[in-house]
Amino acid sequence: MSGKWEEYVRRVKPYVPGEQPVVTDNLIKLNTNENPYPPAPGVQKVLQNMDAEKLRLYPNPDAKALVKELSSFYGIDEDRIFTGVGSDDVLGMCFLTFFNSDKPVLFADITYSFYDVWAELFNIPYEKKMLDDNFRLVKEDYLTDNGGIVIANPNAPTGEYVDIDFIEDIVKNNQDSIVIVDEAYIDFGAKSAVGLIDKYENVIIVQTFSKSRSMAGMRIGYCFGSKKVIDALKAVKFSYNSYTMSMATIETGVEALKDRKYFEEITAKIIATRERTKKELKRLGFSFPDSMTNFIFATHNKVPAKEIMSMLRENEIFVRYFNAPRIDNYLRITIGTDEQMDKLISVLDAYLS
Amino acid sequence: MSGKWEEYVRRVKPYVPGEQPVVTDNLIKLNTNENPYPPAPGVQKVLQNMDAEKLRLYPNPDAKALVKELSSFYGIDEDRIFTGVGSDDVLGMCFLTFFNSDKPVLFADITYSFYDVWAELFNIPYEKKMLDDNFRLVKEDYLTDNGGIVIANPNAPTGEYVDIDFIEDIVKNNQDSIVIVDEAYIDFGAKSAVGLIDKYENVIIVQTFSKSRSMAGMRIGYCFGSKKVIDALKAVKFSYNSYTMSMATIETGVEALKDRKYFEEITAKIIATRERTKKELKRLGFSFPDSMTNFIFATHNKVPAKEIMSMLRENEIFVRYFNAPRIDNYLRITIGTDEQMDKLISVLDAYLS
Repeated sequence: MSGKWEEYVRRVKPYVPGEQPVVTDNLIKLNTNENPYPPAPGVQKVLQNMDAEKLRLYPNPDAKALVKELSSFYGIDEDRIFTGVGSDDVLGMCFLTFFNSDKPVLFADITYSFYDVWAELFNIPYEKKMLDDNFRLVKEDYLTDNGGIVIANPNAPTGEYVDIDFIEDIVKNNQDSIVIVDEAYIDFGAKSAVGLIDKYENVIIVQTFSKSRSMAGMRIGYCFGSKKVIDALKAVKFSYNSYTMSMATIETGVEALKDRKYFEEITAKIIATRERTKKELKRLGFSFPDSMTNFIFATHNKVPAKEIMSMLRENEIFVRYFNAPRIDNYLRITIGTDEQMDKLISVLDAYLS
Repeated sequence: MSGKWEEYVRRVKPYVPGEQPVVTDNLIKLNTNENPYPPAPGVQKVLQNMDAEKLRLYPNPDAKALVKELSSFYGIDEDRIFTGVGSDDVLGMCFLTFFNSDKPVLFADITYSFYDVWAELFNIPYEKKMLDDNFRLVKEDYLTDNGGIVIANPNAPTGEYVDIDFIEDIVKNNQDSIVIVDEAYIDFGAKSAVGLIDKYENVIIVQTFSKSRSMAGMRIGYCFGSKKVIDALKAVKFSYNSYTMSMATIETGVEALKDRKYFEEITAKIIATRERTKKELKRLGFSFPDSMTNFIFATHNKVPAKEIMSMLRENEIFVRYFNAPRIDNYLRITIGTDEQMDKLISVLDAYLS
């Protein structure tokens, strides 16, 4: 006999992350938008030199050293920065902290698939606004009454980018709501809207170490906003878990930030590889929104996406396929090294020609 | 002019963690129940040998390697184990997952001060049940209609322990509710109630690496329960953040578990130091519940706790003082090394005699 406790279990719609196959030498993993290059060289040294003895102590609850370094890298005051266990933690905390009205939170129908998962988890009403046929945001959709707005910019999985004026219009015309701009992919050639935090109290800019800083494995996300917004986030965070960023996370994160040159080098390399890959994919009959990210969201003019995905998998190349309305004929292909993309193109070439 | 967004900010009652002073050679930090000994020696080696390159990839979302090692250490099936970013994360997830009825969740008036913080955060009704005058749980208080029960055993900050039969009675008579047993301090001589998960579907046993395994700085908590309970926790966790345990956390955690001998040695040392400290404190006019933890919750027969706390602080010894009803004449003193406790006793001796 089962107890009644089951009646009170929170019902959720679980997020399905991209598959994490065991990485072998042959496998080319282009399915979860990871960076093909290692973290800044200093990160290895930090791990090597870390004194394990101090792990007996709690870490600094404010991740102060990391916040300080973010402040210095971005030129933004420390009291306008919030950190978390990956940008998912930061975004989840934003949903919990700010989306408590009865009005629906607005986001695109095709966007990061965690937004509706958080809304369901916290019983937040939401409304999905359809991207147009070219997967572009329709600004007017976000100028109606709402309980909050979330925009991934560049968008995922489409790779589409809107400019700062577009974002500013939405922020400016929604000063009674919090507008979250999820800039997980901002460092691959797009321009951050972070300057808006100086003009508007209601905008939050979220970024991550998982893509451009090659540190998905350490779990670091952060956001910028008005001091008021950051204070509200901190209060909620401290009501959930005082110590979320481990000492190893804080110290490796600091080190990664210190090496601006390396960061600029690897993002430039990925951008160059992406642009080259775009040309090759076009040649092979693919079309795609003009990505400003470390992935390309592509559809083929003849062969179904699912078929290509399976074929690539047989060749030990993993790409992401979403079995979802409007995008089930697309593949999201992460930009790897030049060598990896050459292999991808040659396998595609052999199959499609 | 401020936007209306502020009306919808979640109101919280923030948790106040123990002070984290900058640790110098002279400072004796006995205020946050950290372990005075370093983690198992293998942890240092894992950090030294960790290949930073792989940090570019996401960690395994299930922390599989850690769960496997926990399974082998405790002899409990992997599908009955859940991990999180410290036991605070595990406990917070439990509150969010299971406490969704209209009935109050029950816990002691004097206990881990995060329970009411989580209840407030998630709008969970709760009722505090008074410990008796000797800071003991009153079993009958937990045999009334409720929406869930949380028992810290041994309790914090009192150090009091109830035996397994006491816990079993509560679990058995509340099969319509989830009963959480928070065993953060179980490894210092007390006996875990983990065996109850084989008999009851509604009990969850929560433990942590922060105390007995000297790894507060890496943030590792875990719990055991029926497969049903663990599945429900996983579903909610994956709806919040797929990747919470960093690669460094998983790998150092695995290594710490492998060294059972070291674990037994340092916990035995702390127990011996605690028993010796009890005698000294008694001699100096202190009384306290008979602690089964790595701290002693003591009150003096003449001098107010607050005064002693301030005096100790001037001598660079930090202990925890709670300015709260019923316990504002007590100090929670973490068990440090023998040397640290000798210093504490000699400073107390000089002041009190």
